Amino acid sequence: MNTPQNSFVQYEKDAVYKVIFSRRDVRAKFLDKKIPGNILARILNAAHHAPSVGFSQPWDFILVGDLKIRERIKQSFLEEFQKSVRMIESDQERKHKYTSLKLEGILESSMNICITYDPERFGPFVLGRTSISETGVYSVCCAIQNLWLAARAEGLGMGWVSIISNSKIREILEIPEHVSPIAYLCIGYVSEFEETPDLERSGWLPRLNLEDVVCYEKWRVRKSEKWAEARDEIARTDFNKVVK
Amino acid sequence: MNTPQNSFVQYEKDAVYKVIFSRRDVRAKFLDKKIPGNILARILNAAHHAPSVGFSQPWDFILVGDLKIRERIKQSFLEEFQKSVRMIESDQERKHKYTSLKLEGILESSMNICITYDPERFGPFVLGRTSISETGVYSVCCAIQNLWLAARAEGLGMGWVSIISNSKIREILEIPEHVSPIAYLCIGYVSEFEETPDLERSGWLPRLNLEDVVCYEKWRVRKSEKWAEARDEIARTDFNKVVK
Repeated sequence: MNTPQNSFVQYEKDAVYKVIFSRRDVRAKFLDKKIPGNILARILNAAHHAPSVGFSQPWDFILVGDLKIRERIKQSFLEEFQKSVRMIESDQERKHKYTSLKLEGILESSMNICITYDPERFGPFVLGRTSISETGVYSVCCAIQNLWLAARAEGLGMGWVSIISNSKIREILEIPEHVSPIAYLCIGYVSEFEETPDLERSGWLPRLNLEDVVCYEKWRVRKSEKWAEARDEIARTDFNKVVK
Repeated sequence: MNTPQNSFVQYEKDAVYKVIFSRRDVRAKFLDKKIPGNILARILNAAHHAPSVGFSQPWDFILVGDLKIRERIKQSFLEEFQKSVRMIESDQERKHKYTSLKLEGILESSMNICITYDPERFGPFVLGRTSISETGVYSVCCAIQNLWLAARAEGLGMGWVSIISNSKIREILEIPEHVSPIAYLCIGYVSEFEETPDLERSGWLPRLNLEDVVCYEKWRVRKSEKWAEARDEIARTDFNKVVK
């Protein structure tokens, strides 16, 4: 019996790929529309069902609506953004492009979510974390991706604001020393989702071909008789056609 | 117009939640059945469409089929597992449970995938990585979660082997010093997917209630008039019923 229980029929597979390919990092076109409690519960539950090392579930979700708090976070963005601009001062063309991009939606979005990592949860012996301590943080990132995909399916745009000071976030949201802020997210209904990522569309960077990031048996080995079929399929994938 | 373009109808939303809730960390019940090249290309393409800081796409996927290589990796698992057992030597009951668990499927799975992080890609100025350098690794984790969900939809079980030495992985797969191995994964068709995570079913740890990992406006603030509706919905979620 080769068919697993609880398998996916074609239209379900299509929906899974649709959400993966149409997910965008959203920083604009937010609508003035509240996220209903049941939708919020549903997408947070999706995040909470991410894989976690040793089933440690080391995440916390801080929902931030208060505009006074958000204004303080925005201030941190502005400070960090100024620092980053100074790093490309010598490249005027790039600097011009960089400063013209919209990089956050802290105040315009419906709400913000800060996702944290608590290394002490169910510790100190966390199964699977004994050799690679970073795996706890990796679990939190998987939860973030679940949240992103569930949000996209619900018509909610989400953007990750990473030009920000984690020590400021910690101070503003009163996060204790042993807990780490991992992501600061803006989320809300949007008037539309872009067909391609902002940074691709604006010409900041191109999407890599899949075949350039796949190796066979060892690092950067691109040729392989044994993997010929997979290699052909990977080379054939038309990346411009994945998002309808 | 409040409806975004390219929105999701109900059955598509259901499929997205189904894949999120039915995804398992799989280490057993692998079938002796090859993954076709087109399916492999499709799930790798899903991973490649993860969000990445500054669109840096800092991942590489090393496909490992060779059993000689996998045997060396398995040896690293065995060594690291022995080390971890010594950490709970004093707790006989826990040690007994721990050593009875199946924690990897390196040799039995159809193939392995090592996913790495290259901090130099499109660098040194990576947009969005200027304040928090770890965001590059976070991108790779989002790609891993995309891969996991796409694999689940295709009927492929995937397991993350984290009881392993990254320096051994680096040596065996000839990964250069500046690149970091992030995940070592076992993947293949399985005879069935478990309804609940192995570590929950075996009584290793319980699933937390969602309401215990959600805070309002600040760290560990559980009460909030303003968030009353969301709080009620979150408390009401029946976590035993999410997976059918």
